Amino acid sequence: MRKSVILLFLCGSFSFCTAQKQEDSIFIKKIFDQTLTQGKAYDQLRVLCKQIGNRLSGSAAIYKAEDWGFKALENYKSDKVFYQECMVPRWVRGAKESGTYKFISNKGETLTTADGTVNILSLGNSIGTNGAPLKADLIEVKNYTDLEAKKDQVKGKIVFYNYPFDQTFIRTFNGYGDAVKYRGSGASMAAKYGAVAAIVRSVSTAPDNHPHTGSLRYNDSFPKIPAVAIGVQDADNVAQLLKNGKIIFTLKNEAQMLPDTIGRNVIGEIKGTEFPNQIITIGGHLDSWDIGEGAHDDGAGCVQSMEIIQIFKSLGYQPKHTIRVVLFVNEENGLRGGTKYAELAEQLKEEHIAALESDAGGFSPRAFGGTMNTVQFAKFKSWESLFAPYGIQEFNSGGGGADIGPLAAKFKTPVIGLSPDSQRYFDLHHAKTDVFEAVNKRELHLGAAAMAALVYLIDKYGL
Amino acid sequence: MRKSVILLFLCGSFSFCTAQKQEDSIFIKKIFDQTLTQGKAYDQLRVLCKQIGNRLSGSAAIYKAEDWGFKALENYKSDKVFYQECMVPRWVRGAKESGTYKFISNKGETLTTADGTVNILSLGNSIGTNGAPLKADLIEVKNYTDLEAKKDQVKGKIVFYNYPFDQTFIRTFNGYGDAVKYRGSGASMAAKYGAVAAIVRSVSTAPDNHPHTGSLRYNDSFPKIPAVAIGVQDADNVAQLLKNGKIIFTLKNEAQMLPDTIGRNVIGEIKGTEFPNQIITIGGHLDSWDIGEGAHDDGAGCVQSMEIIQIFKSLGYQPKHTIRVVLFVNEENGLRGGTKYAELAEQLKEEHIAALESDAGGFSPRAFGGTMNTVQFAKFKSWESLFAPYGIQEFNSGGGGADIGPLAAKFKTPVIGLSPDSQRYFDLHHAKTDVFEAVNKRELHLGAAAMAALVYLIDKYGL
Repeated sequence: MRKSVILLFLCGSFSFCTAQKQEDSIFIKKIFDQTLTQGKAYDQLRVLCKQIGNRLSGSAAIYKAEDWGFKALENYKSDKVFYQECMVPRWVRGAKESGTYKFISNKGETLTTADGTVNILSLGNSIGTNGAPLKADLIEVKNYTDLEAKKDQVKGKIVFYNYPFDQTFIRTFNGYGDAVKYRGSGASMAAKYGAVAAIVRSVSTAPDNHPHTGSLRYNDSFPKIPAVAIGVQDADNVAQLLKNGKIIFTLKNEAQMLPDTIGRNVIGEIKGTEFPNQIITIGGHLDSWDIGEGAHDDGAGCVQSMEIIQIFKSLGYQPKHTIRVVLFVNEENGLRGGTKYAELAEQLKEEHIAALESDAGGFSPRAFGGTMNTVQFAKFKSWESLFAPYGIQEFNSGGGGADIGPLAAKFKTPVIGLSPDSQRYFDLHHAKTDVFEAVNKRELHLGAAAMAALVYLIDKYGL
Repeated sequence: MRKSVILLFLCGSFSFCTAQKQEDSIFIKKIFDQTLTQGKAYDQLRVLCKQIGNRLSGSAAIYKAEDWGFKALENYKSDKVFYQECMVPRWVRGAKESGTYKFISNKGETLTTADGTVNILSLGNSIGTNGAPLKADLIEVKNYTDLEAKKDQVKGKIVFYNYPFDQTFIRTFNGYGDAVKYRGSGASMAAKYGAVAAIVRSVSTAPDNHPHTGSLRYNDSFPKIPAVAIGVQDADNVAQLLKNGKIIFTLKNEAQMLPDTIGRNVIGEIKGTEFPNQIITIGGHLDSWDIGEGAHDDGAGCVQSMEIIQIFKSLGYQPKHTIRVVLFVNEENGLRGGTKYAELAEQLKEEHIAALESDAGGFSPRAFGGTMNTVQFAKFKSWESLFAPYGIQEFNSGGGGADIGPLAAKFKTPVIGLSPDSQRYFDLHHAKTDVFEAVNKRELHLGAAAMAALVYLIDKYGL
C-alpha cells in the first residue's frame, strides 16, 4: 500500500509509468533514504577539513589528504584502491604578503596625504616581489577595453582591475565566467603595456571584504609581474580615493613557483559484474587553494563521490560496469591529475562510458548538466522526472567538470556535472571562508544521493 | 537585440509568447536586477538582528522592533504607516533553567551511579518549577502509541518524548509536521496519565546538540506540567542510558505566563491608483522566539516584505491596488496579530484580494504555494513560467502562512506562501543558531524579488 502511494507520487501519472520506472523510483528512494539517514560524507568532510585542512598541490597537507582518501576508500570496502602518480606544480605563497599605500589628494587647494593598508592575497601561480617593496602608482581600469584606452599611461604602474561581479546573473557561475578573466589573464595583459604589478578586485558575491585567490596564467610573450587580489570593499575604497587623488602602492609578497613535484590521483573501484572493462568515473578534486579548508571547493565533491561506493555497498547493489571514484589532484592550478587520468586511460586502452564530477559546492542539488551526443542526451534526459521528487528538476545540455574534461576531449566520453544551487558558492570560493561550517549536512548528502542515483541509472541502462 | 534574446529565453517558445508576457518578463527582470544590485533587505535584517536581536511578544525588544519597522516603512516612503494594536500573551523564560540527572545502572551485579547534566530549553507557553527542583524518574516514550502502551507507568514521572525528525522527508516542513506534535501537545498528553513534567527531543535536522524551543498548547482538561526541549545528541545519550538503567531527573526552570500585554502589527501602505479599496497584503512576522536573533524566523520575511515597497518605489511602479506590508506581531505563541488583522478587516469592511506571506526562511526561493479556488489557481499557475529563469520552478496548490490564515478563514482570500529551499531551515528554527550570519544576501534578495514580481502580477491582472 505504502509502496503504491510512493509510486503514484513519483511518477506523476500512471500513463507514463512503466514497471521499469517503478523499480527505478523505488531503488532511487532507497538511495536517498540511506544517504539521508546513514550517510558518511559529512563526517568524512569534517575529518578532511579539520584534521588536514587546506591542501594545495605540492603542500605537505595534500599528501596527508591522499593518504586519508586512500584509507577511506579502503574502509568503504572498494574492490581495489590505487594511486596514479603525476608531476604537479608547486606554487607557494610564502610567509608574508602586504599591501600599503600613500594617498595624495588633489582636491581643493591644499594637498593632503594619508596612509592605508589593504588585505592582499597573492593569486595562485603568481610570482612575488621576493619580499622586497615594489612601489608604484596605482592606475584603475574597469575592464580590458578601459585598459586599451589607458595603455599609454600604464608603464611603470600597478594596474588595478576593478571589474565587479555582476550580481544580476541568477546562476552565479555565469557571473564568475564573466569576471574571472581579469584574474586569469590580467597580469600579462597589463605587463604587455609595461605595468609592474596587477591588483584584481576579488571575484566574489559576498558582502564582505575577504580577498579570493585563484589561478592566473602568464602569457610567455610578456614579462611576468606579481598579481594579487583584494576584497571588494577595499576595491571600492581604493576606487573612491582614486577619484580624488593618486595612490602610491607598496606591494610585498614572497609568492613563487618551485620545481614540479609528485602528486597522486586516489582511486577506489567496484569491479563491474557484467562489463568489468567498461568504466564509469565519478570524481571531485582533492587539492584546494591554500586558505580556508577547501570545504565546498572541493572537499564536498570528494566525499560525495566516495559516498557512492558506501551507498552501493550498504544497499548491496552490485554494479554491472566498473565504478571508479577518483579524487583528482591539482585541479586548481594545473589540471595535471585530470590530464594524467585521461592519458593513462589511453595508454591502458580503457573504455570509459561516462564520467560525472561534483565541483560546484555541496549545496542543494538542483540539476545535472551533460555534454554528450544527441542520442545519449535523449536517454539522459528521459531520467529527469525520476529526480523531481528530490528537488533536482533539470537535466540540461552542457556541463561536465574540469577534471573529466580531458576524458571528453580524448574519447568523447559523455561527461556530466552536478549543479547545486549556486547562490552561496562565490561568497566563499577560494577564500578563507570556505570551511566545514559553511557546509550543510542535508544539502551535501542530497547531492551524494543524486549522484548515486544517476550512476545507478547509467550502470543499468548505459548511456 | 539584447531584449529580444532575453524574451526568447524567458518565454521558451514563441507560440506561448504574447506581447503581454514579454512586457511582464521585462519588468520582472527589472525587479530582480534592482533587488540583486540595490536591495536593502539584507542591511535591514542586520539592524533588526544585531541592534535589536530576538523579540518575543511582550518583551522589551519587540517594542523596539515595532519602532524600527515603523521608521523603516516611513523611510521607504510608504504612503501611510500605522499600527494595529492587540493584546498578546507574555511568556517569560526566567533567568535559570537546568536539567541534571543521576543514572543508576542495572547492568551486571554491581550497581553504579553517575551524575550528568543536559542543556534544556523551556518550551514556549510552558509553566516552570518556580526555580525549585522537580525530581522524578524519567520514562522514555517513542511516540503516542508508546505512551498509551506505557500509560500505567507514567504517574509521578517525567515523560521523555524521543521521536526523531524523519530525515527522509525531502521537504523538511513535512518532517516538521510529522514530529512537532510531541512538542505541541506532549505535555498535556503526559499529564493526562499523571506525569509531572515532559522532556521533548528537539525538532531539529541539525547534526548538533542545540535545543530548539517552540510553542506548546495545554489541554485544559489536564494539569499543566512543565515541558522542556533537549538537543538531539543529549536525547540519544539519555536514551542509551535508559537501556542500561534508570535516570532520576531534576528539572528547574522559571518559565511562566504573565498577564497579556499590548502588541502591534506594523503596517506600511502604497495606495492603489485605480482600486484603492482593494488590498493586497504581504507580510512576515516581527516577533521571534527569545533565543538567537530570529533571523530566518522571521526577520527574513519581514525585510523581504518591506523590500517590495522599496522596489516599487525605486522602479517608479504605481500599483493599481493598495499594497499593504504587514509586520505581524505574535505569530510564535498566539497568532494574535494575524487574528486582529482579519478582525479589523471585517470591522472596516475592507476588501482583500490576495495575501502573501514569507515565513519559511530567507533561503533560495524555489516555489510559491497558493490556497484559492480553481479559477484563481489557473490564473496563478499561468504565471509559473515567468519565474523559471529565477530558479522558482513551481507554483503549487496549497500553501499560505499562519498570519494570513485568518484572512482566508474569514473571507476566503486567496493566500500564498513563498517556499524557499527547505534543507537548512530546521537546523536553526527556534534555536540559538538562527542568527544573521546564517542568512545569505543573494538568497534573501532573490526571495524578495520573487515576492515583488508576484505582487506585480496580482496587481496587474487580479486573482
